[in-house]
Amino acid sequence: MSPKATRKKIPRKKVAPRRKTVTDATDKHTIDCIDRTAESLYKRILSKGKPELKAPVRSLSNVHFDPKVGYLKIGDARKVRTLTVNTVKSFAQTLKMMHLSKEMIAADTFATKREAYYVSKNWEEARFHEQTESDTVMDDIEAMFSLDGVSREQLRFFPEEHGGAVAGKLVVMDRDPVSGQPIEIDCTKFGTGAYTIPHSVEHLEFKTKAKFILAIETGGMFQRLQSHGFWDTTNCIIISMGGVPTRATRRFIRRLADAQKIPVYAFVDCDPYGISNIYRTLKVGSGNTAHLNKFFCVPQAHFLGVTPSDIEEYELPTHPLLDVDIKRAKDALKNDPFFQQSKPWRKAIEKLLKMGVRAEQQALAKWGLNYVIEEYLPAKLAATKAFLP
Amino acid sequence: MSPKATRKKIPRKKVAPRRKTVTDATDKHTIDCIDRTAESLYKRILSKGKPELKAPVRSLSNVHFDPKVGYLKIGDARKVRTLTVNTVKSFAQTLKMMHLSKEMIAADTFATKREAYYVSKNWEEARFHEQTESDTVMDDIEAMFSLDGVSREQLRFFPEEHGGAVAGKLVVMDRDPVSGQPIEIDCTKFGTGAYTIPHSVEHLEFKTKAKFILAIETGGMFQRLQSHGFWDTTNCIIISMGGVPTRATRRFIRRLADAQKIPVYAFVDCDPYGISNIYRTLKVGSGNTAHLNKFFCVPQAHFLGVTPSDIEEYELPTHPLLDVDIKRAKDALKNDPFFQQSKPWRKAIEKLLKMGVRAEQQALAKWGLNYVIEEYLPAKLAATKAFLP
Repeated sequence: MSPKATRKKIPRKKVAPRRKTVTDATDKHTIDCIDRTAESLYKRILSKGKPELKAPVRSLSNVHFDPKVGYLKIGDARKVRTLTVNTVKSFAQTLKMMHLSKEMIAADTFATKREAYYVSKNWEEARFHEQTESDTVMDDIEAMFSLDGVSREQLRFFPEEHGGAVAGKLVVMDRDPVSGQPIEIDCTKFGTGAYTIPHSVEHLEFKTKAKFILAIETGGMFQRLQSHGFWDTTNCIIISMGGVPTRATRRFIRRLADAQKIPVYAFVDCDPYGISNIYRTLKVGSGNTAHLNKFFCVPQAHFLGVTPSDIEEYELPTHPLLDVDIKRAKDALKNDPFFQQSKPWRKAIEKLLKMGVRAEQQALAKWGLNYVIEEYLPAKLAATKAFLP
Repeated sequence: MSPKATRKKIPRKKVAPRRKTVTDATDKHTIDCIDRTAESLYKRILSKGKPELKAPVRSLSNVHFDPKVGYLKIGDARKVRTLTVNTVKSFAQTLKMMHLSKEMIAADTFATKREAYYVSKNWEEARFHEQTESDTVMDDIEAMFSLDGVSREQLRFFPEEHGGAVAGKLVVMDRDPVSGQPIEIDCTKFGTGAYTIPHSVEHLEFKTKAKFILAIETGGMFQRLQSHGFWDTTNCIIISMGGVPTRATRRFIRRLADAQKIPVYAFVDCDPYGISNIYRTLKVGSGNTAHLNKFFCVPQAHFLGVTPSDIEEYELPTHPLLDVDIKRAKDALKNDPFFQQSKPWRKAIEKLLKMGVRAEQQALAKWGLNYVIEEYLPAKLAATKAFLP
């Protein structure tokens, strides 16, 4: 099938070239997992059994903080979906989606959630009517294959948002997406600009002698550190998260820190959002997507600042905590397995609630625009043992 | 002054090195403008006159579309602020802020809006109490100096958000921010990643033989084109806007297109937001900030798609227009000087309203994930004369 426009008048033009062979070990593993799942369904049908698919239960009751691995982990409870009259359509859609995944690996391409939804418009009876339906099927597939250690990105379903910006003592080893030729990207050579992390980072490798990774909340602070060569004087890699880090950013930091065995320090605002959304998501992942945390969290992260004590010691300008801040902080103390098991964090959050104020990382500018580079960060980095866990 | 923490116990550590001299012609012009303004105030005071500052009137009544320059232009009406008892504080703050600007140029640094607010915390009586106050003063200064052709970025007040992602046939010439040594960034050498546009782009220069710039609404579509070497087969530069383009992205595209005399094609969703927010802002700027449009708009931009006719010709999956879409489209027809003067645009928007639907750029995935690369874009680029203005 093709649309009116190209049916009628437009000759097929250049086709974008692609890598010819799939040699990647990761891709092979993913295809194996898809094949194995399909085969077991097929055999079940031949033996007149009811085909079924198995995935982890994703409710919070099946999530706990595991201090040994350092992140929020999914439990052993499994949900089994059996093919019945009622589930026939979503069962078929799940298989079509797995098939699409296999096709995408073969063609070395990918789909965003939204694109996957549109692709189904050519699936006749199995077509999705709303993107929420295709998103649910994709979440199920992701949870199912997470049991085999395969992430959504490896299935070639990519997030819409790209990763953060990177600069500093790091060489990223990628490949030319068309020719497959190796490419080295030297993150010291970006002038005032930076390197943008791609949507999927599984294929990247790294060379670095940096001593640590500094993950920064705001683009403005990142630009300040980049413009004044902070990574050069302190021998590090700086990464702008731009608020809560995207999947690609978290996975990039995780793979880099794992491969090079270097610590990660988070530099965010001192408010419940910076602490329990940005930092918590970076370090231990989130409860809703616990089946993914093994890929996306960064257990080696520590909290450099801004801490509640910094507000006092550095006499920072503050704003009063809003109702939403107070609610978020209380919720972290009451319901979050990560903060619950950490005494230093419980004390820090209680202190913040008692102080009744919050402070942004930019507040250090009260003492001069580059005070953060000249005084605050060096003082902090001289005592990394004191960082919050 | 310094805070408790560093007063008490922390010795001053490494100071970030900086370029030693200000040689930039742009910086010299900016300093001249600041000095001239200050001098005229000073002379006025010596001659016992009332000091005054002059800026363009920023209401919509002082804005029109100028077809000769191709953007929404500020008119000749001026607002004069005279120093009186009532204005003494904001007058002083304006001068302090101009002084900060001069200091930042000398130190080769910058401040975000938020940082500038915090810097004032050390200004004693002139201190701002809310960031909205400092933002207003900064907007006034920006408007005032726009008369001299000086932008906010040249005054070293940088936006918080960085620019979009770039890949393709382009070499960006920057300098190492610390040593000042020239650096060349080859945007064909990013693998699956990309180049992040810095917050300020005034100092960048370019080398390219690309035939056009393709400005793309979504990160997902950018990644598709990047992953399949689209810029290589079509000899172009691709830029991800990520929704309404930031100031840095618009200025980057504008400077690049001006310097290299190459056209800019916009590829966005076919909905009133894509048309009248993203595309209109890119091409002609906005009415609220008309004094800046001479820096930030891209009059050489044309609208590749998705057009209302594409929805029919490519039989795209659609969603119904929401109330907010209809309101936005009617508002464009009724109040927007750019759309009002353009018959092709009026017809296109009326057609969209009549069809009652919208379509996303990802909707092309109905015909295959890479249909957009293999068929849609080549067909469109074979007939650039047909693009909407």
